Amino acid sequence: MSLHSIAWRQDALEVLDQTRLPHEVRVLRLRGWREVVQAIREMRVRGAPAIGAAGAYALALAAREAAEEADAFEARVQQAAEEIRRARPTAVNLHWAVERLLRCLDPRRDPRANAEALLREAHRILEEDLEANRRLSLLGAAHIRPGERILTLCNTGALATAGIGTALGILRAAHASGKGIHVYVCETRPVLQGARLTAWELLQEGIPFHLLPDAAAGWLIARGMVDRVIVGADRIAANGDVANKIGTYTLAVLSRHHGVPFWVAAPRTTVDLATPSGAAIPIESRDPREVTHVGGIPVAPEGTPVLNDAFDVTPAKLITAIVTDAGIALPPYEESLRRLVQTPKPLEV
Amino acid sequence: MSLHSIAWRQDALEVLDQTRLPHEVRVLRLRGWREVVQAIREMRVRGAPAIGAAGAYALALAAREAAEEADAFEARVQQAAEEIRRARPTAVNLHWAVERLLRCLDPRRDPRANAEALLREAHRILEEDLEANRRLSLLGAAHIRPGERILTLCNTGALATAGIGTALGILRAAHASGKGIHVYVCETRPVLQGARLTAWELLQEGIPFHLLPDAAAGWLIARGMVDRVIVGADRIAANGDVANKIGTYTLAVLSRHHGVPFWVAAPRTTVDLATPSGAAIPIESRDPREVTHVGGIPVAPEGTPVLNDAFDVTPAKLITAIVTDAGIALPPYEESLRRLVQTPKPLEV
Repeated sequence: MSLHSIAWRQDALEVLDQTRLPHEVRVLRLRGWREVVQAIREMRVRGAPAIGAAGAYALALAAREAAEEADAFEARVQQAAEEIRRARPTAVNLHWAVERLLRCLDPRRDPRANAEALLREAHRILEEDLEANRRLSLLGAAHIRPGERILTLCNTGALATAGIGTALGILRAAHASGKGIHVYVCETRPVLQGARLTAWELLQEGIPFHLLPDAAAGWLIARGMVDRVIVGADRIAANGDVANKIGTYTLAVLSRHHGVPFWVAAPRTTVDLATPSGAAIPIESRDPREVTHVGGIPVAPEGTPVLNDAFDVTPAKLITAIVTDAGIALPPYEESLRRLVQTPKPLEV
Repeated sequence: MSLHSIAWRQDALEVLDQTRLPHEVRVLRLRGWREVVQAIREMRVRGAPAIGAAGAYALALAAREAAEEADAFEARVQQAAEEIRRARPTAVNLHWAVERLLRCLDPRRDPRANAEALLREAHRILEEDLEANRRLSLLGAAHIRPGERILTLCNTGALATAGIGTALGILRAAHASGKGIHVYVCETRPVLQGARLTAWELLQEGIPFHLLPDAAAGWLIARGMVDRVIVGADRIAANGDVANKIGTYTLAVLSRHHGVPFWVAAPRTTVDLATPSGAAIPIESRDPREVTHVGGIPVAPEGTPVLNDAFDVTPAKLITAIVTDAGIALPPYEESLRRLVQTPKPLEV
C-alpha cells in the first residue's frame, strides 16, 4: 500500500480522512490525543483494526501530554483511556489496544519513559496488524476456487486496517494469485463505505467488481451469481457471534437460505473471549443525519424519525468459517476460537 | 387526498413531480403524449397503478393528436401505444392500460370520436384505481391486529396510485380505524422512494413510523420488532410470483427465516395471468447514475461498474397472502388468483 489509513510521522499521527474519499485524498496530521478521538468518532479513521491502532496512538499522545504536567500522570492517562474507549463502543479492537497499552505502564519508570513505552507499543500494534492482515489474507485466499464470485459489504481493506485488509485482504490475495475472482460490493448505507471506499480500493487494484444497492443482494444471490460471502468483524464473541456493519445479518440469512458459504475475516484481536455471546455486545447508534442526509443534502423530509444502528449481530450458527491470522475457525466456535486466540505463535504462511 | 399523483385538468395531465419531493411540491402540466412518456421514464410519475393511469392518458393524448392529422389515425395510435408500453417494462399496469384503451377503438367512429372515447376510458381507469385502492386497503386492514409493527419498502401510497395506495393504503386504513400501528420504512435505495415519498406521506398523515437503511431490515426483524411485512407489486404472475421494487426478495427471505407474515398488496390489474411465472417477467435495469450519484452528487469513484436492476422477483412460496380489491388470495395462487381476477364484480366493502 502506498497509501496508509494511519501512519506515525514526525511526532504526529497522520490519518487519511475517509469522510472525504473518494473525492479528495486529504491527510490529517493529528498532534493532540483529543483530535485523534474526534477523528475516530467522526469516522475519519474507521474499521475495527485501524481504530484499534489509532486508539493506541491516541493514548500514547495523551501519555506524552500528561508527562509534561507536574502531577497525576497515571490518573490523566487513565482518564484519557476511558474517553478513547468510549469513542466507538462496538469494535473491541479499540478496547483491546487501550488495555494493552495500559499494561505497559510501569510505576518504576518516570512519566516520560512510560509515555515513550506506550508509543513503542502503539507502533507494535500497527506492525502486528499489518502482519495479521497478510497472514489471514493468505490463509483465506488459499481456499478460494478459481473464478469465484464473492459478495462483500462495507470496507475491510487497506483503509480499515494497517495492512491490506481482512475480507478485502483475502480478495486482494486471491486476485494477486491469479484466481480470476469477481467481487460484488454492497454500497453500505448509510455511510456508503462500499461505494466510497471499497470501490476506490478495487479500482486502484484492478480487481473486477460491480457495486450494488444493499437491497439488491438478495436478488443477486437468488440468481446464483454469488459463490461466497466474506465480511469483516467489529467484535467476535466467545461463542462465535459476530458484530459487524449493519446489513451483515441480512447477508448471512440470505446466504443460509441459498446454501452459500458465509465467511467472517478478522485478526485475532477482534475475538473477545470476555464477551460470551452477541447479546453482550454494545451496539452503537449513530446520528440520524447519516440516514436523512447524503453528502450534506437532505433525502428525507424534516422531522423524519430514524433508526441508525451502525452494527448488527450475526449468530454463530449462520457463519460457515471465521478466518483469522492464527488459522481458520470452524464450528463449534467456543472451542475453535479459544484455541486460535490462545495459540502462542501464529501459523507460518 | 388533497394532493394527487396525477389528475386531468383543463385538457392536460397534471403530474406531481416525484423527483422533486420532498423538497419541492411541483406540479407539471403535460399536454403532449411524449411529455407524459418522458415523465414516466424519468419516474416523475411512478408506482405501478399510477403509471398505468398515466399511460392511459398518454395514449388518449396521442389519439387526440392523431385525430388532428389527415390520415393514418389508427397507425399513429398503435405506434404511440408501442412507445408508451416500452417506457417501463416491468409494471404490467402500463401494458394493461394501453391494451384496454386500444380495445375502445371503434372503426365505425371517426378519429375525433375515438380519441374522446379513449380519454373517457382513461378517466375510468383512474376512477377504478381509486376505488380498488379503497377496497383492498379496507380488506387488508381488517386483518391487522391492534399495535402491529409493520415493515414496508418503496412507496405504495397516494403517490404511487390514483387513491390512498396499496400496501400504504392498508397502513392508512389500519391507522384510521384506530389500530395503533407503527410503521418501519426501508429507505429504498437507489431512488429513495421510502425516504423521500413514504416518509413524506406518513408525516402528513401523522402515522407513527421510523425510517431505516435497507440493510437494517434484517436486524430489525431479528430483534422481534416486526409483526408483518407488506409490500406492493409491479407485476404478479399467474403462479403468484411477484415482481416488485428491488429489495422485496430480501425482505421475503428474512420474513420466512423469522416466521413473519409477508403480504403483497395490489389491485387486480397488477395480476397478469398471461405471465405464467416470475421467470417470464422482464426486469428493468436503470441508469447506473442512480447508484453512483445521490441528488446529483457522486458517491462512488468515477468508473465504478454498477448493477442497477430496479426490480426483483419474489417466488410465490415466500408470500403469505396477496391482498387485492377483489379479495385476499392465499396459496395455491394459481387457483386463488385466477378466481379473484375473474370475479365479475368485486366484493362490497
